[in-house]
Amino acid sequence: MAEESGITVAELARHLGGELRGDGARVVRTVATLEQAGPEAVSWVGDQRHLRQLEQTRAGAVLIGRDIEPPAGRTVIRVADPDLALCDVLRVIGPSPERVPPGVHPSAVIGAGAVVEGAAIGPHVTIGARARIGAGTQLHAGVYVGADTRIGRDCVLWPNVVVRERTAVGDRVMIHSNTTIGTDGFGYLQRGGRHHKIPQVGRVVIEDDVEIGANAAIDRARSGETRIRRGTKIDNLVQIAHNCDIGEDCIIVGQCGISGSVTLGHHVLLSGHVGVIDHVRIADGVTVAATSIVFGDLAGGRTYRGSPAVEKMVFGRQQVSLQRLPKALAELRALTKRVEQLESAANHPETG
Amino acid sequence: MAEESGITVAELARHLGGELRGDGARVVRTVATLEQAGPEAVSWVGDQRHLRQLEQTRAGAVLIGRDIEPPAGRTVIRVADPDLALCDVLRVIGPSPERVPPGVHPSAVIGAGAVVEGAAIGPHVTIGARARIGAGTQLHAGVYVGADTRIGRDCVLWPNVVVRERTAVGDRVMIHSNTTIGTDGFGYLQRGGRHHKIPQVGRVVIEDDVEIGANAAIDRARSGETRIRRGTKIDNLVQIAHNCDIGEDCIIVGQCGISGSVTLGHHVLLSGHVGVIDHVRIADGVTVAATSIVFGDLAGGRTYRGSPAVEKMVFGRQQVSLQRLPKALAELRALTKRVEQLESAANHPETG
Amino acid sequence: MAEESGITVAELARHLGGELRGDGARVVRTVATLEQAGPEAVSWVGDQRHLRQLEQTRAGAVLIGRDIEPPAGRTVIRVADPDLALCDVLRVIGPSPERVPPGVHPSAVIGAGAVVEGAAIGPHVTIGARARIGAGTQLHAGVYVGADTRIGRDCVLWPNVVVRERTAVGDRVMIHSNTTIGTDGFGYLQRGGRHHKIPQVGRVVIEDDVEIGANAAIDRARSGETRIRRGTKIDNLVQIAHNCDIGEDCIIVGQCGISGSVTLGHHVLLSGHVGVIDHVRIADGVTVAATSIVFGDLAGGRTYRGSPAVEKMVFGRQQVSLQRLPKALAELRALTKRVEQLESAANHPETG
Repeated sequence: MAEESGITVAELARHLGGELRGDGARVVRTVATLEQAGPEAVSWVGDQRHLRQLEQTRAGAVLIGRDIEPPAGRTVIRVADPDLALCDVLRVIGPSPERVPPGVHPSAVIGAGAVVEGAAIGPHVTIGARARIGAGTQLHAGVYVGADTRIGRDCVLWPNVVVRERTAVGDRVMIHSNTTIGTDGFGYLQRGGRHHKIPQVGRVVIEDDVEIGANAAIDRARSGETRIRRGTKIDNLVQIAHNCDIGEDCIIVGQCGISGSVTLGHHVLLSGHVGVIDHVRIADGVTVAATSIVFGDLAGGRTYRGSPAVEKMVFGRQQVSLQRLPKALAELRALTKRVEQLESAANHPETG
Repeated sequence: MAEESGITVAELARHLGGELRGDGARVVRTVATLEQAGPEAVSWVGDQRHLRQLEQTRAGAVLIGRDIEPPAGRTVIRVADPDLALCDVLRVIGPSPERVPPGVHPSAVIGAGAVVEGAAIGPHVTIGARARIGAGTQLHAGVYVGADTRIGRDCVLWPNVVVRERTAVGDRVMIHSNTTIGTDGFGYLQRGGRHHKIPQVGRVVIEDDVEIGANAAIDRARSGETRIRRGTKIDNLVQIAHNCDIGEDCIIVGQCGISGSVTLGHHVLLSGHVGVIDHVRIADGVTVAATSIVFGDLAGGRTYRGSPAVEKMVFGRQQVSLQRLPKALAELRALTKRVEQLESAANHPETG
Repeated sequence: MAEESGITVAELARHLGGELRGDGARVVRTVATLEQAGPEAVSWVGDQRHLRQLEQTRAGAVLIGRDIEPPAGRTVIRVADPDLALCDVLRVIGPSPERVPPGVHPSAVIGAGAVVEGAAIGPHVTIGARARIGAGTQLHAGVYVGADTRIGRDCVLWPNVVVRERTAVGDRVMIHSNTTIGTDGFGYLQRGGRHHKIPQVGRVVIEDDVEIGANAAIDRARSGETRIRRGTKIDNLVQIAHNCDIGEDCIIVGQCGISGSVTLGHHVLLSGHVGVIDHVRIADGVTVAATSIVFGDLAGGRTYRGSPAVEKMVFGRQQVSLQRLPKALAELRALTKRVEQLESAANHPETG
């Protein structure tokens, strides 16, 4: 973290593996757009449209693509991907997310046989018996990790996250505050008008590089597993029910609700507030537009919208039809009158 | 918990009150389907369709109905209701949910005059003054119980549940992690463009055998009570607003939102993502399909769907009409032309 | 708090700045409607329609407007606004919300350089380095306040609220349990099919007199600010994404979802379950009906409904059209037959 002291442009170029042109001794402390940047700010050209602004910027240094020839007199760092390099710059010059200090806070309660070597355990954390927390992982204040749960390396669990017993979490997973992983699936037997709880003896598996937003809930499987596969990103207030299998590199936006035993392929994008009915299968590369409801299986690589969700073009035709409907109903009434007149004329030709 | 050591089929039969046929000395340790079961697994015939698989299974023991004559040489336990018995088996041979050890964890903070005899109080729990926690009840880590709240016997509150002051919770209630019970209802007086908070002086009453999922919110009443009646089951991320009265044995699936002063009868089923507008009354035995929105009172014993929710058959006709609409608009245009031709012919009979 | 001992009507009149008529020595202990009130209850005439009940009530004292001449023999307190005065009465005679005792609970963990003078800090609270908590503010059990966060005066954060680092919270703000403020915005760069996290270096600013319900999530800005302006009230389970700017005195009802970079003007009312697509601007004084989805900018001072949200009258016409649709389709079929007959007659005039 260089928030206070800043970093020289030369150091930054080295860190990014970029090619420095200009004054490497300058110190930068912040990130800003080309327009807003001052002499202590790093800026970037993410797009050819920004090139003109590059000439006028007051930025201390600018990230540009290797394919761009910088204007004379500018201090730039040439990189393969300026947008991606910008993310690295933000990590270096901050402000950084808060970190849990290394070691175990004295107020934390660690269960018998739990392993926390190399992890950073915050205040008021509770870790169950035989749980294993990987090196480099941070458990912020108030986190609960149940018995026999395994959390991999370099994870971050933000304050008050709950990960119930027997869950498996991979490496580099981030889970945001007040989210619940591994709670019971919602399942009952109906007998004589009463609901009898079906024990939920399965578990949740979260693979590497998954991120889960705040106040979300992912249920354990009735038996077997609920699985979130590598690289998938889940937003706030999302519900994923028991026995779902969410593919790799999916994006699930805020307030989506995924019912039990749903299967998502890889690279599925569910926009905000989408609902998926139980046992549905959504194939690789599907996009579902915001607030749609998926009632049946969806074939791969296409975009769907509506409730029930249909292919985007079909939805578009439906919407156009709906907008025409009030006018069409008036036309139908008028046409009916014209037909009546024709009929009347045909029946009484003498008066025609 | 017999997870490690297993249990003999004879012991299991006794526990279930079932009739043993075959080798009672066998030890079983797990539950699996007829297809997947090995010799240490219990399986079950929940359905006549499974009978053929019963002949081929490798399961150590099989739960079957009393009306089924077991094939020779099979070890079976005959019970009145194999599905229900299976739930009991899962409770016996686990894996069991994590339990809070008996007694009060030294890190818990217990308010003046609070009574916790016979309850199991986990780490970092806070219990307000004069609260009463029943015997056999488990409060997992990080739970908060407010002043003057009463929690009955044999309840389980999972980590980080919040139950605010003056709430009443019955016996055998389960509340999942990060759920909030008894937060203020959402009510303001508008005066001169500002919103003045109306004090929410009522409370929440949760009757026996209710289960509430994770990350849900149930508001206290403005005055009087918000009440969840006996045996009702509520899923994750559900919102129940102030002064609602939810009947007995209802099922409320994930992400439903129930506005203020709504009344539900008994055995109402709200599927996922359903919304109910304030002051609506839903009668006994109503089912509302997923993602429907209820804008008015619903008569009992029927199924409703759509937004606004209408009877299922009406909804079905609407959907069929909608699908026909684009074609109908084209037909209307074509018909208009044909009428024009007829009119033209009628006006100019000589050219007909 | 006078819950136990009650308060004389004279004292109450003084507290309200009202004009006493009748017996000021009476003691009142509770609030009830005119019909239900007994001699120890305060009641109120919020509306001319209640005047008749005023004559028959058994209430110990009644709040009435200054424009109303009280019936002889009644004990009343005349005030400018009986509804508003009733809120004050409820605050005086309770039951009051639970309060955190002054000072810092010994189990709380206070970071280096944090300032908590005059605040009430409950059990198991964690406060980050350099955070500042204003005088009169209550942090209930299990609250987390991140490093460098500032919380103003006379705020209440209910149990298990999380306010992440570098957040700014004004005065008299109330945040309900299990809500998360300042969690990372949901933003990734897609490269080669993988999602690379964009550091979320912005923050959240919550201005004075805001109230936020339970289990809600408000994301920090990617850079810059997510801002909730003065006097806005937000209900349970609401999601507000990164870089939103929510105007003054708005009302956002339960389970609304507001996507990134949305701007709301002042006095906007979003009813329950409303969704707003990213980058939309909603002007001052707009009302959006429950469960609508806003896909585009909305002009000020009007009411919108539907998905996509349209002006209420347009929505009404659409709904009427939809209800007529099944009948219209039948009429279209019948009309087509009549046209066929006319055509047939025109083509075969001899058989007409």
